[in-house]
Amino acid sequence: MRQFHFGLRSKLSILLLLVLVTFTTQAQKKDGITRMDPTFWWVGMKNPNLQLLVYGPNAGTYEYSLSHPGVTLVKTNKVENPNYAFLDLTISPTAKAGTFTLTGKKGGKTIKRTYELKARTAEPKAQGLNGSDFIYLVLPDRFSNGDPKNDKFKDMADSNADRNNPFYRHGGDIKGIQNHLDYFQEFGVTALWLNPVIENNQPLTDEGGTKRSAYHGYAFTDHYNVDRRLGGNEAYKKLVLAAHARGMKIVQDAVYNHVGINHWFIKDMPSKDWVHQFPSYTNTSHKFQPIIDPNGSKADWDIMLNGWFTPFMPDLNHENKLVENYLIQHALWTVEHFEIDAWRIDTYMYNEDQFMNRCNQALLDEYPNIHIFGESWVNNVVAQARFVRNNINFPFKSNQPSTLDFVLFNAFNDALNQNFGWDEGVSKVHQVLAQDAVYAAPMNLVTFLDNHDMNRYFSVIGEDLNKYKMGVTWLLTTRGIPSLYYGTEILMKNFKDPTDAEVRKDFPGGFTGDKENKFTASGRNERENDAFNFVKTLANYRKNTPALHSGKLMQFVPQDGIYVYFRYNQDKTVMVATNTTDKEADLKTERFAVRMTGFTKAQNILTKQPVSSLSTIKIPAKTALVLELQK
Amino acid sequence: MRQFHFGLRSKLSILLLLVLVTFTTQAQKKDGITRMDPTFWWVGMKNPNLQLLVYGPNAGTYEYSLSHPGVTLVKTNKVENPNYAFLDLTISPTAKAGTFTLTGKKGGKTIKRTYELKARTAEPKAQGLNGSDFIYLVLPDRFSNGDPKNDKFKDMADSNADRNNPFYRHGGDIKGIQNHLDYFQEFGVTALWLNPVIENNQPLTDEGGTKRSAYHGYAFTDHYNVDRRLGGNEAYKKLVLAAHARGMKIVQDAVYNHVGINHWFIKDMPSKDWVHQFPSYTNTSHKFQPIIDPNGSKADWDIMLNGWFTPFMPDLNHENKLVENYLIQHALWTVEHFEIDAWRIDTYMYNEDQFMNRCNQALLDEYPNIHIFGESWVNNVVAQARFVRNNINFPFKSNQPSTLDFVLFNAFNDALNQNFGWDEGVSKVHQVLAQDAVYAAPMNLVTFLDNHDMNRYFSVIGEDLNKYKMGVTWLLTTRGIPSLYYGTEILMKNFKDPTDAEVRKDFPGGFTGDKENKFTASGRNERENDAFNFVKTLANYRKNTPALHSGKLMQFVPQDGIYVYFRYNQDKTVMVATNTTDKEADLKTERFAVRMTGFTKAQNILTKQPVSSLSTIKIPAKTALVLELQK
Repeated sequence: MRQFHFGLRSKLSILLLLVLVTFTTQAQKKDGITRMDPTFWWVGMKNPNLQLLVYGPNAGTYEYSLSHPGVTLVKTNKVENPNYAFLDLTISPTAKAGTFTLTGKKGGKTIKRTYELKARTAEPKAQGLNGSDFIYLVLPDRFSNGDPKNDKFKDMADSNADRNNPFYRHGGDIKGIQNHLDYFQEFGVTALWLNPVIENNQPLTDEGGTKRSAYHGYAFTDHYNVDRRLGGNEAYKKLVLAAHARGMKIVQDAVYNHVGINHWFIKDMPSKDWVHQFPSYTNTSHKFQPIIDPNGSKADWDIMLNGWFTPFMPDLNHENKLVENYLIQHALWTVEHFEIDAWRIDTYMYNEDQFMNRCNQALLDEYPNIHIFGESWVNNVVAQARFVRNNINFPFKSNQPSTLDFVLFNAFNDALNQNFGWDEGVSKVHQVLAQDAVYAAPMNLVTFLDNHDMNRYFSVIGEDLNKYKMGVTWLLTTRGIPSLYYGTEILMKNFKDPTDAEVRKDFPGGFTGDKENKFTASGRNERENDAFNFVKTLANYRKNTPALHSGKLMQFVPQDGIYVYFRYNQDKTVMVATNTTDKEADLKTERFAVRMTGFTKAQNILTKQPVSSLSTIKIPAKTALVLELQK
Repeated sequence: MRQFHFGLRSKLSILLLLVLVTFTTQAQKKDGITRMDPTFWWVGMKNPNLQLLVYGPNAGTYEYSLSHPGVTLVKTNKVENPNYAFLDLTISPTAKAGTFTLTGKKGGKTIKRTYELKARTAEPKAQGLNGSDFIYLVLPDRFSNGDPKNDKFKDMADSNADRNNPFYRHGGDIKGIQNHLDYFQEFGVTALWLNPVIENNQPLTDEGGTKRSAYHGYAFTDHYNVDRRLGGNEAYKKLVLAAHARGMKIVQDAVYNHVGINHWFIKDMPSKDWVHQFPSYTNTSHKFQPIIDPNGSKADWDIMLNGWFTPFMPDLNHENKLVENYLIQHALWTVEHFEIDAWRIDTYMYNEDQFMNRCNQALLDEYPNIHIFGESWVNNVVAQARFVRNNINFPFKSNQPSTLDFVLFNAFNDALNQNFGWDEGVSKVHQVLAQDAVYAAPMNLVTFLDNHDMNRYFSVIGEDLNKYKMGVTWLLTTRGIPSLYYGTEILMKNFKDPTDAEVRKDFPGGFTGDKENKFTASGRNERENDAFNFVKTLANYRKNTPALHSGKLMQFVPQDGIYVYFRYNQDKTVMVATNTTDKEADLKTERFAVRMTGFTKAQNILTKQPVSSLSTIKIPAKTALVLELQK
């Protein structure tokens, strides 16, 4: 997520509130343990360590003990706030699944709570992603309402739901997504990435005079609960199981950088250094350069990393080891419990470097195949490389396996909106991919045309269906793991101006009473079907064409607005030839001989027509041909 | 140099001519040795090897011998053309200076020629450049005519000289440059970089219908002679001695990639593979991306490297070992003989990689302090890093110590011509320098505002003297070794449109009969004196301020159009604060505390006024303050 320009109103008062609330809310209650995080754990994890957060009135003032074969309480960590204890346990490889009772004693007083260690299942999980996948990004509140009973709850901080208000919750949920698995698979989707599903029990917030709900999901208030309005943990687990049953994968959207101001542990903070606090409210600068800059200043670095994302999202202090453990264990718990396949990390650059490497490593140690890709909204390849495994000897080396490819996204945009030039238009795509030497694994980068924080693709390209097809073709045929933002396949449009709610509209047909149903061919108009069928044809071809998954890329210098590249392996060669100009072109293919020698004809994948000669290829204006070469 | 869009006329005929001329011109003459290259050599070089090119009618058909203590003829290499022999000699450390006779025998015939091995001098040479230097780039034909007798020669292929024709020679020469050493030193120049001085005995060429001379110097016709019209070898050697006597250095402009079509060895080529030839005339693409691109094609690489720069400049084949030796030995000879301090390499990217590394290494082995910086006209930091010592694990690792910084040049332009924005205006400078981690030695890069191939700086910035001063200030205070194109200090202007001759005008006052003399304050108008004195003040301050040579750079994220950076070492801290906006600004300095703590006041270097308080600093609109901080 990336949000700028928040009004300054009430920022200071919020901060003061935060300080006052801390250390007071639980003071009058009866001693006891009200929660333990992680809410449960497993025996047989590779890492034998578990740090249990024990919370409740004066829970931090007790001495703890437990008795369970193979489980040892090594150390109890205390913090400023007497309501917390952090217990370091080890769980031996021989420990058996089951429950144990944690007992706290102080003078004559005793407090107790039961904790469960489960057996691990053999269900598929952390399957990872690779070039064979096609990711679809869905904003759960805005996609489809599968359960009208969970749209709002009176006992939540924001009890509103109103589809007429773009800033309020609309009632979409996980069941609504699950209901459309057939739809996703129809056009070749293999993996679903949901914007965060974790509880956002935030109040309506006043942002620049507008009351907004946290329907976006990026302001967690309880890590261990999926939001009830989306269906809770049960609905999420069901979705994963249903997806896995079809061979589809689920990507979790993770947020380490911040939480919601209404998070239970923010309302009663373990210690003052649980979050970053400046003498007065300080927003992040959103300026990433100081992180990568050998000429940069620590002061600018601090503001980028430790400034708050919004006044409603406290910035967690990753240098606090208890915070680190909490977040890492939650990540492991989530993958293990929900059987998640891949891990998308929000606001990647805003997190402390060493912390991020430890988070990634913890997941990779436990789940070697998991795919991890962060959001680093940068504008150049050097910066992008800094936040993923790379070939540059930066003083800090990231271990992140993948990243969203913002630089290629920018190039796609320029390629579709600029006239061709020496360095302009489709030359931009060529030039960005020409810099792939900086990445350790460019084929693993996640590519995209837009997302929930951006002007929608179809609007950016002036609602030009020819451009639309060119861009989608590049997305689905060049290197990387493609992702598509919900609704792009049915030409959903809009600019972020005046607000990002414009690009997060409800999917037509996803809600009871919708006049249109774009999930079906009959509900889509001719242009929408043209777009949908284009994506469907190409994504399904892609799905069955390993040359487009793991085949090498070879691109040629664009000439006269024509850009040609090949994906190829031992079995197959796919030629993608784009004419970005306004005139039909006759492309002489002699200069591509290294990839075309031996082939005499081709199949046009999009028109399904044969191409009988390859020496000169006719390319209509503004068209990307996808040709499977044949001998 | 970079020249595009040559007319195609007569390209093919030129190529045919080249093929016909080869192997025929010397055929009827009497056997003999007419030249040996290098024209002389030295005893006591670190590298004991010398490959002598022996040329003359049928010189390649003879068996050679020589007798000189410590000198051994190891091998004679023959080529297709019978007029060449390449003799491999070794010169032992004990060999004495002197002459020897090379004798060739064939049947009863004998041919001979004397060769000289000189003693090396102890004169300073290859002193290198570093951050304390300020380079001034001069186009010899266009700067000043010190010797009107050498303007033209009837026995040269182009016997014209006409100051009224922008494409003909104008008569400027090396003596004209030497006459103005006082002038250069007045405004702080420490090193002169001359566009190439080597003989360009080219005919007038027809380029797009215009007859052009090779006044630019980039089309060598005899490596071992400085052009007579510039004063020949003697004038060049005198210039170096005179410069060295003042503590100034000389940068040689080297060209490995191509020679002139009239080069003596092109008119009678040693072998067909002496130059790159395609089935039909093929121009270089000028597209560097295939060189750096892991997804690129060999076909595109070949055209970039092996295509010709123009039809009048054959592209040398660096994979031919004899060509390689010839060029490397010429480089060593030039530095040793003329006592050159630094080595600027033209069209660096167009040369074969391994060849370039061997050229650089040969110079560095012999002259460890020499500074080498190539021209790689790229548009991004990754590409620029590829052609210099860098921190990226490219499959090929360049050993070039430095490069011209084209990316920072572009950023300077954008900073002066774009309104300030998130990624625009002066943010560009900040963002480019933030990527310095890719370079092994960013402080060694050679920075500039324009050059002989570009629109002139003062025109690019709309002849705005405030912008002029901002840009010059950045050039002279940020990291790198600054260079200035002749005339920038007196506001010479113009765009390349219609031709590059527009940006290569004669320096007013450099030629007999000039109505104006801009070498003197009285000859310059008020604006020109303002500019000149600005450069003079700042460059002379820089000259005496080690913090601006080797001091660290610390830059801060630009805010509201204001960009602040520091150069600092243990002794001194210089703050450069630029207000790029149209309004005076009050800059609060709290965020720069890490560099300003302990300082209470400052000296404004440009106005020479004291600054009594540092907590808030007033910066006029469009102004870069240079403040030396004081305790």
